[in-house]
Amino acid sequence: THQFACAFKPNLAFYEAHGSVGWDQLKKTIEAIPEGKLVIVDAKRGDIGNTAKAYAIAMFDELKADMVTVSPYLGGDSLAPFIADRDKGAFVLALTSNPGSSDIQELIAAGRSIYSHVVRLAVSLNQLQNVGLVAGATKPESLPEILDIADGLPLLIPGIGAQGGSVDALKSALRGYSNPAFVNVSRKIIYASQSDSHEWDVRESAMKLCDELVR
Amino acid sequence: THQFACAFKPNLAFYEAHGSVGWDQLKKTIEAIPEGKLVIVDAKRGDIGNTAKAYAIAMFDELKADMVTVSPYLGGDSLAPFIADRDKGAFVLALTSNPGSSDIQELIAAGRSIYSHVVRLAVSLNQLQNVGLVAGATKPESLPEILDIADGLPLLIPGIGAQGGSVDALKSALRGYSNPAFVNVSRKIIYASQSDSHEWDVRESAMKLCDELVR
Repeated sequence: THQFACAFKPNLAFYEAHGSVGWDQLKKTIEAIPEGKLVIVDAKRGDIGNTAKAYAIAMFDELKADMVTVSPYLGGDSLAPFIADRDKGAFVLALTSNPGSSDIQELIAAGRSIYSHVVRLAVSLNQLQNVGLVAGATKPESLPEILDIADGLPLLIPGIGAQGGSVDALKSALRGYSNPAFVNVSRKIIYASQSDSHEWDVRESAMKLCDELVR
Repeated sequence: THQFACAFKPNLAFYEAHGSVGWDQLKKTIEAIPEGKLVIVDAKRGDIGNTAKAYAIAMFDELKADMVTVSPYLGGDSLAPFIADRDKGAFVLALTSNPGSSDIQELIAAGRSIYSHVVRLAVSLNQLQNVGLVAGATKPESLPEILDIADGLPLLIPGIGAQGGSVDALKSALRGYSNPAFVNVSRKIIYASQSDSHEWDVRESAMKLCDELVR
């Protein structure tokens, strides 16, 4: 059966909205994460050649991320710099959790969806065992199609919680596959309450969700 | 006939590679650009909902960009925050200048290329006349296909210079269309020489290229 893993996944946009101050805050936050915890910077970068290399430097050398999310529209050569070091890696966007995922990702080319083309591209790039996939829990019916060709790649799964994805539907979809799954829940946990017991409520919300996922 | 426009187009990755220091440098550089010159931050952002909004804040409010490049893999709702203000806008990646553009962009769905689906999506989003397209000069044979459905949208065109695109082939491809074209040449200009006359050589290189484009 599948395994659930634990990681810190900061959403870079919310730091960038504060410019250099935000970048410094994120860097310090990542420095404060205990040794041994995976840090996945959700950056959805994707660019060509030397520019992609510069983004990889920004994510891995500057922010000290372990992994980063990347967008596949520019193709394999745009992803290569993020997976050139076997101690670092990238989750490639395959099928995202938003309504607009149907605009491009769900188009059908040569008999299969664009997101399944992306899955095959990601599998072909996984020479150093450091490539994963992003697949949203809002479309659990599409997960088996992805998992059938994902060759054991780990999944980063947004969409549970505020976006409306169901834990039970996700668990059903994952049943029978051994791909590691990082289930990413942000708003439902960090906005667990606005009361004085906020910190406690966050903890409770996170533990409740973990319990639902593993039981 | 087409018109050539002039803009400052910093490549955000090369600033980000220096973290918060780089972000501050870019902000100061943009502040130093004379009033009335268009600033296009080449960021290739693309994310969902609130995250896309945060990126738009980072680009427009924090860095003071006029326009930004965006990646369309996540669909229309991921692009909307970048074009919600009629005084700001976005160039949507359609067909990029790198070899990997064939991996996803050139797949054929419902009888047409993925990049032409992106062009149609961009046209449908252009309610405030602030949407443009990125189309590489390394594939001039594909430009008419894009221009035929681009409904007058401005083009940002990389690929001339170090990437090998030909000025003459580009001009032929654009002939007969009135879309504004921003021809983006970086390395061939900024690395014009390593001599003591570097600044002069940069100027000469830029002027020579402008001359080739407009004559």
